[in-house]
Amino acid sequence: MEKRKEIPDIIVGRLPRYLRVLINLKETKVTTNSHELGLLLGYSAAQVRKDLSQFGGFGKQGTGYNIESLINNLEEILNVKVPRGIVLVGIGNLGKAILHYKGFEKHGFYIAGAFDDDPDLEGVLIGNCKVKSQKMLRSFIQENNIQIAMITTPASEAQKVAEELVASGISAILSYATTILKLPEEIRVEYSDPIISLQHMTYYLD
Amino acid sequence: MEKRKEIPDIIVGRLPRYLRVLINLKETKVTTNSHELGLLLGYSAAQVRKDLSQFGGFGKQGTGYNIESLINNLEEILNVKVPRGIVLVGIGNLGKAILHYKGFEKHGFYIAGAFDDDPDLEGVLIGNCKVKSQKMLRSFIQENNIQIAMITTPASEAQKVAEELVASGISAILSYATTILKLPEEIRVEYSDPIISLQHMTYYLD
Repeated sequence: MEKRKEIPDIIVGRLPRYLRVLINLKETKVTTNSHELGLLLGYSAAQVRKDLSQFGGFGKQGTGYNIESLINNLEEILNVKVPRGIVLVGIGNLGKAILHYKGFEKHGFYIAGAFDDDPDLEGVLIGNCKVKSQKMLRSFIQENNIQIAMITTPASEAQKVAEELVASGISAILSYATTILKLPEEIRVEYSDPIISLQHMTYYLD
Repeated sequence: MEKRKEIPDIIVGRLPRYLRVLINLKETKVTTNSHELGLLLGYSAAQVRKDLSQFGGFGKQGTGYNIESLINNLEEILNVKVPRGIVLVGIGNLGKAILHYKGFEKHGFYIAGAFDDDPDLEGVLIGNCKVKSQKMLRSFIQENNIQIAMITTPASEAQKVAEELVASGISAILSYATTILKLPEEIRVEYSDPIISLQHMTYYLD
């Protein structure tokens, strides 16, 4: 898909936010416009028009955007039309919270398997998932063609786990471990780290 | 502090990542350089030099950056020299995981108070915090001059909680609730949402 490479990553990063807001709007409305989307997301209307125009003419001059068709287009662009399985590694407090989280299915994902290296956790049902032994990680990923993993292990184990994931065929990792992973360039990694977000805000505080 | 307003927010957002990597490097090294920092963070060396030069001449031509002094400078710029208290609202699975998380103190934060509207949770000790009644939220924030809050309530309650926080004097919110908050412009809001991060990555998958 050649087109994908031409869109700046910074714009790609905003598309899931548009999608989130549109899914909320859909409950009460049929159409929206760049002004409304901008207000809800904190972007200017011009920015919204520019972002969405990168993907072709979704909006109509004067009448705005049809919400449902914009959702469809964004879901297609973001590759979440068909639900994608995720493996979750590390079933501590945070891993358990994620297993209880009910928002994945609605947005194109499901937890396909949960793994931990604590034998006491093996077979324990959390949310809808029975925890599996971490020894089964590689074969599970390969047999189920999983591409995405979430890491919720302690920071000290995250690098080793990430390498095992990559060796197993994973190509995208969302890591909650507070450490920067060293992985081959072609592997996509996103971090969820409260410290990074908090320090971004304290810059602006007195 | 006039200078703060002139630095693009996109660069501000990268500074906590530099700080994180530098704190790790400090355990084994005294100096670093733009090439090494770039490798660890996935930025180009030129980008690193440009980012850090925004804040004055920390690096020396040829010898690179002294790690400790760069950490000090970044902590000062990011306003995390003096630990800042945070109130946490919503003590479900995720809230509990955050209360057990040990990384705050090291990075300039501590959980000053944890709140929930479930009377059964009142007084329960989780991590180092006794859960307080949500009715006490406003007086606690005001008496302790708290500026930062984390929201881990269900999405359906997040807007109401956020408004109460703002009315109590909070000026920065990190929200884990999967909904976009509508708040006055001057309030800083960051979101932590696995769906947004996952969809950003699926764009690049087949």
